[in-house]
Amino acid sequence: MIDKMIYRQKYKILKDLVEQKLDEYVPVLYPEEIYKSMKYSLSAGGKRLRPVMTLEISRLISGSYEYAIPAACAIEMLHTQSLIHDDLPCMDNDDYRRGKPSNHKAFSESTAVLAGDALISYAIKVIIDKTPSSVPRDSLLNVINEFCKAAGTDGIIGGQIVDIASENKQIDAKTLDYIHEYKTAKMFILAVKAGAFLGGASEKQITILEDFASKFGHAFQIYDDILDEISTLEELGKTPGKDEKAHKATYTSLYGLQNAKNKVKELCNYCCDILINNKFDSEILQGIISDITERVC
Amino acid sequence: MIDKMIYRQKYKILKDLVEQKLDEYVPVLYPEEIYKSMKYSLSAGGKRLRPVMTLEISRLISGSYEYAIPAACAIEMLHTQSLIHDDLPCMDNDDYRRGKPSNHKAFSESTAVLAGDALISYAIKVIIDKTPSSVPRDSLLNVINEFCKAAGTDGIIGGQIVDIASENKQIDAKTLDYIHEYKTAKMFILAVKAGAFLGGASEKQITILEDFASKFGHAFQIYDDILDEISTLEELGKTPGKDEKAHKATYTSLYGLQNAKNKVKELCNYCCDILINNKFDSEILQGIISDITERVC
Repeated sequence: MIDKMIYRQKYKILKDLVEQKLDEYVPVLYPEEIYKSMKYSLSAGGKRLRPVMTLEISRLISGSYEYAIPAACAIEMLHTQSLIHDDLPCMDNDDYRRGKPSNHKAFSESTAVLAGDALISYAIKVIIDKTPSSVPRDSLLNVINEFCKAAGTDGIIGGQIVDIASENKQIDAKTLDYIHEYKTAKMFILAVKAGAFLGGASEKQITILEDFASKFGHAFQIYDDILDEISTLEELGKTPGKDEKAHKATYTSLYGLQNAKNKVKELCNYCCDILINNKFDSEILQGIISDITERVC
Repeated sequence: MIDKMIYRQKYKILKDLVEQKLDEYVPVLYPEEIYKSMKYSLSAGGKRLRPVMTLEISRLISGSYEYAIPAACAIEMLHTQSLIHDDLPCMDNDDYRRGKPSNHKAFSESTAVLAGDALISYAIKVIIDKTPSSVPRDSLLNVINEFCKAAGTDGIIGGQIVDIASENKQIDAKTLDYIHEYKTAKMFILAVKAGAFLGGASEKQITILEDFASKFGHAFQIYDDILDEISTLEELGKTPGKDEKAHKATYTSLYGLQNAKNKVKELCNYCCDILINNKFDSEILQGIISDITERVC
């Protein structure tokens, strides 16, 4: 059993650090419009789950999260990029994100396209410019390589294109699994592997952690599908029931709500077992997992 | 005086190599839609000016262009990305590019957004995965760093956002110069510096070549403004007179056609002098410059 109060305190320290560093890494320079637009979405809140996991994995491996701070922020930038572009009228056409007008509503569609574009390269520059120079160049290249995999056709873009193609269609379990793996799990794999690379993890540890991240990513997506079905706008901070309206297949629509809950529990138990069996002693990771199961199971 | 026939033969060898490698580096995998969309725009023709310059600079410095092939292709991918997003309805809203329907017309708006996004990270992965392993890791990181600078707020995005903000406005010489430097010259600076890094250039050589690339970039943009004013759709392969219609300030609208021609000549002469004074003996670079002056001066 974990102490929830200690978990929340520890989580908050990392989350606050990520937010402080995001603000520091992205100043408002000329031309101000683009920087303001990037900062608007970067500071729009959210759980900062992926960067917190990067920092925590790095700490688990090496005892320190210091070297992973720039990469953690870069991963949050990539996540933010994908949200800005997902919300565009030609994509999910969502006017709200995290309870605020989405980027193209607060600025303009062209600025939102460009802010998303800019965040990709900006994030990689943060990794290169801000990671302490004592980190081996090979580790840095590994992180950038993993970042680009998650950002592209072999990651969130692959997932998003199949997701869009699946609208208004009866899709099978294999396609849904592909969407969850690529649109969601690949980002968690990046978050976890970046922490592992920067913490100096062994190849064996990286393989184990990649399995952890993939299973966690699937659990998180099913959890998100369940929330989308059972929550209100206020609780969710974005339009609920959107997937149903867009006739998108979700885990709940394909398997039913109870099976979805069971699957979340099964995957979360698997993730906990990985942590215990490999002596990854982390209140933060255990707390994140238990938050998920408690809210929907 | 250069031998035009030899110049064209040498140029064609490099251009063909770039096109062959672009085709090889981007296969059609699942999900096919995104790969097809990327390939559609990558194979839509064009002069391949930037990657040819990367290869030629690398050859000038080291005697070989072999190490620079992946970076050259990555730079063409980034250029293609910027064209796909520039053509979007929320940006320049152009239905044609290089005489063919633009990406969002041939596919869909959402696919065009995602294809552009994907090309950025795909390009960097090509640099990491395909550059021969004998190239020092530091050179690779220098190239990626320069790539990200050109791709982002400190490059084409900065230029594009100021360009859009300047529509229907009387802009001053300083703003026009900013747009030309960031929207156009920064990509040539990337092309030239990548070739220099991968060829193993000295710091002094890199400084000289950066000056060459910046001046060439400005000459090229003014040349493009002139062509936009004097050409037909067929000659241009894209809608002519668009800048005027969009009430965008160009060098010709601000200074007049004759002054624009004089400026192209002045900048091209400056670039030729750099090549001669530093014994950069390149029929290709001299040929490119003389093509520009002959066509518009």
